[in-house]
Amino acid sequence: MNKATLALLIHGGTENWSPERWKRRFDEVCGDRPVWLLPGGQGDPAAVHYAAVWKPAPGELAAFPNLRVIFNLGAGVDALMADKSLPKVPLVRVAVGDLTRRMTEYVVLHVLMHHRQELYLRASQREKRWAPKYQWPAGAISVGIMGLGTLGTDAADALRRIGFRVAGWSNSPKTIAGVECFHGKAQIDAFLRQTDILVCLLPLTPDTRGILNRELFAKLSRSSPMGAPVVINAGRGGLQNEADILACLDDGTLGAVSLDVYAAEPLQPESPFWTHPKVVLTPHNAADTDPDEISRYVARQIARFEAGQTLENVVDPARGY
Amino acid sequence: MNKATLALLIHGGTENWSPERWKRRFDEVCGDRPVWLLPGGQGDPAAVHYAAVWKPAPGELAAFPNLRVIFNLGAGVDALMADKSLPKVPLVRVAVGDLTRRMTEYVVLHVLMHHRQELYLRASQREKRWAPKYQWPAGAISVGIMGLGTLGTDAADALRRIGFRVAGWSNSPKTIAGVECFHGKAQIDAFLRQTDILVCLLPLTPDTRGILNRELFAKLSRSSPMGAPVVINAGRGGLQNEADILACLDDGTLGAVSLDVYAAEPLQPESPFWTHPKVVLTPHNAADTDPDEISRYVARQIARFEAGQTLENVVDPARGY
Repeated sequence: MNKATLALLIHGGTENWSPERWKRRFDEVCGDRPVWLLPGGQGDPAAVHYAAVWKPAPGELAAFPNLRVIFNLGAGVDALMADKSLPKVPLVRVAVGDLTRRMTEYVVLHVLMHHRQELYLRASQREKRWAPKYQWPAGAISVGIMGLGTLGTDAADALRRIGFRVAGWSNSPKTIAGVECFHGKAQIDAFLRQTDILVCLLPLTPDTRGILNRELFAKLSRSSPMGAPVVINAGRGGLQNEADILACLDDGTLGAVSLDVYAAEPLQPESPFWTHPKVVLTPHNAADTDPDEISRYVARQIARFEAGQTLENVVDPARGY
Repeated sequence: MNKATLALLIHGGTENWSPERWKRRFDEVCGDRPVWLLPGGQGDPAAVHYAAVWKPAPGELAAFPNLRVIFNLGAGVDALMADKSLPKVPLVRVAVGDLTRRMTEYVVLHVLMHHRQELYLRASQREKRWAPKYQWPAGAISVGIMGLGTLGTDAADALRRIGFRVAGWSNSPKTIAGVECFHGKAQIDAFLRQTDILVCLLPLTPDTRGILNRELFAKLSRSSPMGAPVVINAGRGGLQNEADILACLDDGTLGAVSLDVYAAEPLQPESPFWTHPKVVLTPHNAADTDPDEISRYVARQIARFEAGQTLENVVDPARGY
């Protein structure tokens, strides 16, 4: 008997990251299991038991009557959760070391850029000004991480290693060595009040949509050596109120921001973010997913599932992540 | 009997870093020991047994006939070693955690900036281009650190934590967990051959002057995902051949450089470094010294010395550091 088919539904991606590259990786790790790259009419949709997806179109997954598990090839599942026709089978998030390490690279880089006054130093270079400013040490800065899942926990640890004071906030209580952990609505103000650099790694859910707004920014610390606080969002664009960010940068409520995600992607050419002197922007590439490790992860999860074991990192529909 | 006098000879410095600020800190930690801020005629030079110095003028220290110990308020002692009239007493380098942590901040920031293609991403932002490029993981990059003293060892550890492959080269053999250590002239080519990002933290001595030149750059790895190798110099300007750096950037031998130090400081307005698109420059502020921790360090060393114990971090005149 043939093994059940794995369908790949992959839309978009950068150079070196084509659907064909994913297909080759999955072929390598799936042995004799058929792997179909869709859309395309490779066979009977009823043969498909597993789907590994990247930005599938709404409704696309409803075409498979015998689907058993959906694997999302990234960390954020908000777009899938919004698909009302999504088959009611387990949805598995990617949680691999490669993705975690890449996000930690991004977070450490952007925290250090703001801490070490890179916007000022690059402007000085452009203006040919040799004008060193007082530089406070990392130990004088409190970084606050919103979202203490796999990504937030690893970033917190790396930032501590460099010498920052690190605190975190999450929906449910967490304990992380060396990190002051706040949780729930009751503790968010206390968390924000002592945060000089806010790093947002929250999932996008109905509860978190638009959470990065003026009301929140106004609660951040005003007493750090940096002056105004800094916000770094590498979660989802839907977490941020973009008009509030611009207004808060302009009235001094925020000193600077790093943004990797936007309400609409790609970021439109008319967005004021592109040219704002206090905005460091990246094109949603904080943590690219790597086909090598992720294809092995999916193959391992399918093997576990077929052996009757529990799937890992299954999304809780009630929480939305 | 009065305690022996400590003279402070401090020239230059940035805002918040005035000679008066040093004087206040030293007064606090020295108890009833007289602390003189020089130049100025505060008393008999014969009363001065200790000098703590920052960029003293050549010959300035020869004015104290009873000098017992010289403390340099930074890590690099090359300028002092070049003073032929320097009294032949122990010269103590600063080796404090604050200085080490600041240098690690700088090294991690600049390694990550090049690794994460910041020059490309900032240019994309200026040009309003949403154009994510393939991003390799840190594990695909070998960082090579020249100089494995206190600073190099700590930077190596922090870079390893982020996921880079890390190797090091030093004059004498070293052993650092998780870091491939090369040493001496016989092993420098093997070290360079596998280095994608070279970080130079060497002391400036007759042996190391001009070591960052075309001959060395041409030996760096050509097979990394970054393409051409990157050089980061946070040691001393005298280590680098600036004409070679510019020529190697222009002919592709080097992909980019980060420079914190220069042959002449402040960097002259006519230097091509200011406007070169592959140069990230900072005004010799990679690791500012902090009066708080350093004044305590000097006071502790004087106490050790007067109790007949060994001074720490004494410069070896034969090595020059």
